[in-house]
Amino acid sequence: MPISANDPTRKSWLDVPVNSDFPIQNIPFGVFITKDDVVTIGTRIGDFAIDMGALQQLGYFEGIELTDDMFMQDTLNDFISDGKKTWRLVRNRLADIFDVVNPQLRDNDAHKEIVIFNVNDIEMQLPVLIGDYTDFYSSKEHATNVGKMFRDPDNALLPNWLHIPVGYHGRSSTIVPSGIPVHRPMGQTLPNGETQPVFGPSRLVDFELETAFITTDANIMGENIPVEEAEDYIFGMVLLNDWSARDIQKWEYVPLGPFLAKNFASSISPWIVTLDALEPFRVASPKQEPTPLPYLQQTGDHAFDINLEVAIAPENAEATVVCESNFKYMYWTMSQQLAHHTVNGCRVNSGDMMGSGTISGSTENSFGSMLELTWGGKNPLKMNDGTERKFINDGDTVIMKGYCQNDQVRIGFGEVSTKLLPPFERK
Amino acid sequence: MPISANDPTRKSWLDVPVNSDFPIQNIPFGVFITKDDVVTIGTRIGDFAIDMGALQQLGYFEGIELTDDMFMQDTLNDFISDGKKTWRLVRNRLADIFDVVNPQLRDNDAHKEIVIFNVNDIEMQLPVLIGDYTDFYSSKEHATNVGKMFRDPDNALLPNWLHIPVGYHGRSSTIVPSGIPVHRPMGQTLPNGETQPVFGPSRLVDFELETAFITTDANIMGENIPVEEAEDYIFGMVLLNDWSARDIQKWEYVPLGPFLAKNFASSISPWIVTLDALEPFRVASPKQEPTPLPYLQQTGDHAFDINLEVAIAPENAEATVVCESNFKYMYWTMSQQLAHHTVNGCRVNSGDMMGSGTISGSTENSFGSMLELTWGGKNPLKMNDGTERKFINDGDTVIMKGYCQNDQVRIGFGEVSTKLLPPFERK
Repeated sequence: MPISANDPTRKSWLDVPVNSDFPIQNIPFGVFITKDDVVTIGTRIGDFAIDMGALQQLGYFEGIELTDDMFMQDTLNDFISDGKKTWRLVRNRLADIFDVVNPQLRDNDAHKEIVIFNVNDIEMQLPVLIGDYTDFYSSKEHATNVGKMFRDPDNALLPNWLHIPVGYHGRSSTIVPSGIPVHRPMGQTLPNGETQPVFGPSRLVDFELETAFITTDANIMGENIPVEEAEDYIFGMVLLNDWSARDIQKWEYVPLGPFLAKNFASSISPWIVTLDALEPFRVASPKQEPTPLPYLQQTGDHAFDINLEVAIAPENAEATVVCESNFKYMYWTMSQQLAHHTVNGCRVNSGDMMGSGTISGSTENSFGSMLELTWGGKNPLKMNDGTERKFINDGDTVIMKGYCQNDQVRIGFGEVSTKLLPPFERK
Repeated sequence: MPISANDPTRKSWLDVPVNSDFPIQNIPFGVFITKDDVVTIGTRIGDFAIDMGALQQLGYFEGIELTDDMFMQDTLNDFISDGKKTWRLVRNRLADIFDVVNPQLRDNDAHKEIVIFNVNDIEMQLPVLIGDYTDFYSSKEHATNVGKMFRDPDNALLPNWLHIPVGYHGRSSTIVPSGIPVHRPMGQTLPNGETQPVFGPSRLVDFELETAFITTDANIMGENIPVEEAEDYIFGMVLLNDWSARDIQKWEYVPLGPFLAKNFASSISPWIVTLDALEPFRVASPKQEPTPLPYLQQTGDHAFDINLEVAIAPENAEATVVCESNFKYMYWTMSQQLAHHTVNGCRVNSGDMMGSGTISGSTENSFGSMLELTWGGKNPLKMNDGTERKFINDGDTVIMKGYCQNDQVRIGFGEVSTKLLPPFERK
C-alpha cells in the first residue's frame, strides 16, 4: 500500500506556520483532553489538534475496518494493535480529509466546530499505556564517554558493547508527557572519599537526550522477531528525556544496573511520529565493526536523519541551547534493538516503549547529557543569563526538540519540556 | 478491624484435606476460568475453587461497599485498589460464608452448584495485570555466594549491599502462572577463554527460588512511602521462579544489569496469600549490621516464617527435592524494599510485583538456585532417578512450594510448577 500521506506536494486547508513540525505530511498520533473534558485520540496539523473520535463518529473513516470506538479511547494501544496496514490506511485518510482540494470537512463548519481545536485549548496525555519500558545504550560516543569517565580511558568500551545492543528494563509507572514537572529525587549517595553513605536530595540531576519507539504486539512468548521484519512492529517514535540522578546511580548501580537513579521520572513528547512519516529521512547508520552475529545483520538503511537539540531555561530566563545531536549517530538501529530484545523469546506488546539510550555525537556540543557536556562537572556550561550549570538546577526547564528536514518538507516531534522542581514535600 | 478470618478454631463445611495449604484460615485471592469459560475472581478452600463473581451476584457480599462487577473481572487490580479495609472485610466475609456453622450457602444446593468448582475443573490465570515488576537481591547468603563465585571470595559482598536493598527492574510481559511451560532461551554467550561471542541455546538455565509481593496504589509521583506504613500497601505474596540463563547473564550484565538472561520468563504461583493470612507467622528478620539509614529503620517483626522447597521432576520420573529454604532468612524486609523503592518518589500502582531475590539460607541444601547448589556446576546434584543435574534440562519440571505451619494451622501457597521446553521453533 502506498504511503500517499507522504506526498510532499500536498497542502492542507488548515494553516500551517512556516517551520512547523506538523505539516500535513506528518500526521502524528496522540491522546488529548478537550476543553469540554473529553478524552480522545487525535492528530495534529499546524497548531490544530484534531479529534479523531469525533471524526470517526461523523463517518470520516468509512471504509476502513475499525471497531466503533477505536478513537474514543484514552490510549492508542488498541489502534496500534491493529497493525501497520490499518495505521497506514488511517494516516492516508487523514491526509485526504485535510487536503486543500477536499471540500468534505473543509466546507462543513458544523463538523469543523466539533473536530478541530487550537492546540492551546487541549491538554496532551500519555499516548499509550506502556506495559514495559526498555532503555538501550546504543550510542557508541555516549558509551565511550561514560567509560572514559568512570572506568578506563584506554578501554572505555566494555567487551560486550560492540556485540550486543546493551539494554535494561526501566520503570513504566513514572513515564510522563511533556509539561508535567518532575521533583528532584531523594536518595542514598556515597560522598567522595567516604565509606558510609548519606541520605538527601540528589545533587547531580541530569537529562539524557534520547528517542524512543513504540511497538505493536510483535510475538508470542518464546518466538523471536527477525531483524529484517522488526520495523513492521514499530509504530512510531517520540523524544525521551531519561532523567538521571548521577550520584544515586554511582552508588547503587553495581551489579544490577541503574534503579532509583532513573525510575523517579522519564519524560516523553506526546505526539507519536510514525515510521511512515519518517521514511523520507531514512539514512545509513555507522558501519558496524566487527560484523554483528547473523541474527543482528541487516541490509539497507535503518537509521533516520533526525536533528535533536536540548535547551535549558532557567526560571524566568531565556533558554540556552546546550546540545545539538542527531539520531543517525546511533550505532545500533531500532530493528537490531528489537531483534535482540526478542531473540530469547521475550514477548513484546502493543504500547511497549524502547529508548535509544543517550544520543551523543562525536563533537563536544553534541553530547547528550550534562555528565558528558561538562565532563562530570569539570567544565560548567555558560547560560545566556550569565549563570553556569554543571547539572540541572531546581526551577530549570529542560526542553528537547527533534525534527527532520529536506528541501521539500519538515517532519518534527514538537518538544518534551519538563521543569525540575525541588524535592517533594509531604503536606 | 479484627482479622476474624484468622481464627484458628474456625472450621469450614467444605472438606479440607489434612495438610492442605488452603484451610478456611487462608482465603487467598486469584483469577480463574471455569469449565463454562467464564473468567472470575475467586478464592480457594481445600480443593475447591470459589467463584466470587457468582457469590457477589447472589448477594453474599451485601453490606460491603463494592462496585457491582468488582469480582467479575479478569484481574484483581481494581479490588486491590480498594485498599486494606476492603480486603479485610471481604476475607472475613468469605470465612463467615464457609464457616461450618453458617447454613446460608451450605444448605443452598442451587447456589453451591454455581459457586463452587473442583480445582481440577478450572484453569488458573495471572491474578493481576502487572504494570511494573521489580526484583530485589535481598538474601545476604545468596549475594555472598554469587560474589564468591564471580568476584572476590574475600570481599564477596559489594560495598553498597549492606546499605541498600539492591533491586532492578524486570519484564512484566513474560510473567506467567504456574503450569505454563517455558522455552529454553536462545542468546549470545562468550565461551570460556574466547574473545568472540557465539549464538545458540543457553546451556545454563537455572531457577531462582523467590517470593514476590503485590502492591496496591501506594503514592503519587514524587511522594515516598515511610517504612512503617509500607505493609499497609502490600496486598499479599506469591511464590516466584525467576528463571535465569547464567551464560547469557554473564556476558551481558555489565554494566546495566541482567536483561535477556531473565526476561524470557518468570513464573508465579497463582493464588495471592494475603499479609493478613500470614500474620500468625510474623517473626524477626536477621539483625542488620551496620544500622541502615533512618528511612530504612523499623521496629517490630517484619519477616514471615515461610518454609520454601524446590523440587526437580525429570520427564516421566519422580521429583527430587533439591532445596529447602525459608523466607525468614531475608536480610531486607518487604517494607524496607518498598520504602527504598519509593524514597525517590517512584510511583507504585495496584498490581505491581516485587520479587525478593533468590532466597538462600546458610546451609548448602538451602541455596535457592542451581548455580549455588552445584557451585557453578562443579558439584552436580544426584536425582532420585539416578541422573545428575548441573543446571535444568529440557523436559525437567521445576516445582516450588511454600507454606507456614504452627500447631494450629497451616497456611500455604500451593505451588509454582513449570516445565522447561527445548528452544522455540517457528512453524
